[in-house]
Amino acid sequence: MSAPIPFLKGHGTENDFVIVPDPDGLLDLGPAQVARLCDRRAGIGGDGLLRVVRSAKDPAAVELADRAEWFMDYRNADGSIAEMCGNGVRVFARYLVSAGLAEPGGFTIATRAGLRAVTVAERGDVTVDMGRAVLPGPDDVRVTVGGRSWPARNVNMGNPHAVAFVADLAEAGNLYEAPGVTPAGAYPDGVNVEFVVDRGERHVAMRVHERGSGETRSCGTGTCAVAVAAARRDGLDPAVTGEPVGYTVDVPGGRLQLREYPDGRIEMTGPAVLVASGTIDPQWLAG
Amino acid sequence: MSAPIPFLKGHGTENDFVIVPDPDGLLDLGPAQVARLCDRRAGIGGDGLLRVVRSAKDPAAVELADRAEWFMDYRNADGSIAEMCGNGVRVFARYLVSAGLAEPGGFTIATRAGLRAVTVAERGDVTVDMGRAVLPGPDDVRVTVGGRSWPARNVNMGNPHAVAFVADLAEAGNLYEAPGVTPAGAYPDGVNVEFVVDRGERHVAMRVHERGSGETRSCGTGTCAVAVAAARRDGLDPAVTGEPVGYTVDVPGGRLQLREYPDGRIEMTGPAVLVASGTIDPQWLAG
Repeated sequence: MSAPIPFLKGHGTENDFVIVPDPDGLLDLGPAQVARLCDRRAGIGGDGLLRVVRSAKDPAAVELADRAEWFMDYRNADGSIAEMCGNGVRVFARYLVSAGLAEPGGFTIATRAGLRAVTVAERGDVTVDMGRAVLPGPDDVRVTVGGRSWPARNVNMGNPHAVAFVADLAEAGNLYEAPGVTPAGAYPDGVNVEFVVDRGERHVAMRVHERGSGETRSCGTGTCAVAVAAARRDGLDPAVTGEPVGYTVDVPGGRLQLREYPDGRIEMTGPAVLVASGTIDPQWLAG
Repeated sequence: MSAPIPFLKGHGTENDFVIVPDPDGLLDLGPAQVARLCDRRAGIGGDGLLRVVRSAKDPAAVELADRAEWFMDYRNADGSIAEMCGNGVRVFARYLVSAGLAEPGGFTIATRAGLRAVTVAERGDVTVDMGRAVLPGPDDVRVTVGGRSWPARNVNMGNPHAVAFVADLAEAGNLYEAPGVTPAGAYPDGVNVEFVVDRGERHVAMRVHERGSGETRSCGTGTCAVAVAAARRDGLDPAVTGEPVGYTVDVPGGRLQLREYPDGRIEMTGPAVLVASGTIDPQWLAG
């Protein structure tokens, strides 16, 4: 009989994760096991799974081992592999500090999308470098829900977004189904759609439909796309002014601070919470 | 700083629960704490919470203490109090045996709806006495989804059900919204609606819309209502024949065996699974 498998449950703005510490890379967590763990009713439940492994102990990260001790082996809830997750990185970093595997302050985490710089406050928020936004056009994108349509800005954060400013977040309806997007072909691989309202100066609130997932409580790259779209709408561009621009973005699951720098980098700062810890029955996991 | 709070996560046909052992009734779990624990993204997540307390240690069950050592303090995910939950009783009983607090075999559990007899197999299914069904009429109930309607049987298991036999479970649509039910006034407190297809001899499959919850993976009283409705449709009534009648009822979350006796009692037998155990951060729970 194999030993109980340690786990934790945590979330960042209610984007939630099963965290599995596996420092020496001894666990063989295949897609079926990951899906079983992330099942919200038959398992523990999460939007995804974060396996915590030393970069030196995982073939996917060994070449980053001299620059980042820990590798975030992120999996989607269906067991497939994902490159990155901004809310996940915050929770991952919070775990490392909480477990004494990293010191509070700044350090670097290896992901399948490369290295990610994080800063963990002693008690509180975690900041992660989310990379750069690209605004590829076309400029005539429109999104449609229930017969109403709005102009939207096309923002790419490594994944595609359409950001629409609306008068009231309720206008987006129940978001059970993906909003319509035109022109046809603007997003050949589908798109995440953000609906945004103003809450105050450099402060907006959003709802998001993530492609393949429906409406979610938070979307890290979506908040970056929204901050950039809001800045351009407001005539602000750090690359032009040489000054960073900050926006507060409220999502259904909480509040994030976004900061865009003159070199294009976007930093996201927000909460990362560890709720519970324990062990998984290995016989259950084996099915 | 208070001590970590023990918990387990388990499910019966994917009706899932946070289990909180509190044998001596020392925990003060108010509605806000329960809702926090049952939150699927910000907390641990579950359809409900099962607090495990000695009957003698809880005012709600102390008068049952000489007949049932353990009281199932069941709470809904929103923190409100519920009387009973058939899938919950199975998981509760499985936990007692797993923790060495009860011997495998037959014993009695105290609930807010009174005593419940259970039988726990050494390894496997749990049987629970679900009480009796009442068929109060009216006989002309119809349920409607997306413009189509079907005749339905009105079955009361302590809570109201409308059971409709359909040709294909997909006919019930996405069940995001509650099906329409006529005549108006047939169910003044709302109704759980079951859609049923035949799978074989005394074997049916169902989907259910639970009032207030939407479509769920399983509904214990719903499977009882379906078994009784199927038996009457098939001309079988244990009260008439003096012979028990058994049906297999498949729900989206698994399979249950229902057995109706000549005295009207219905026994439900099915799986009860403990997935993981651990401790909750008391500072997080305090908010």
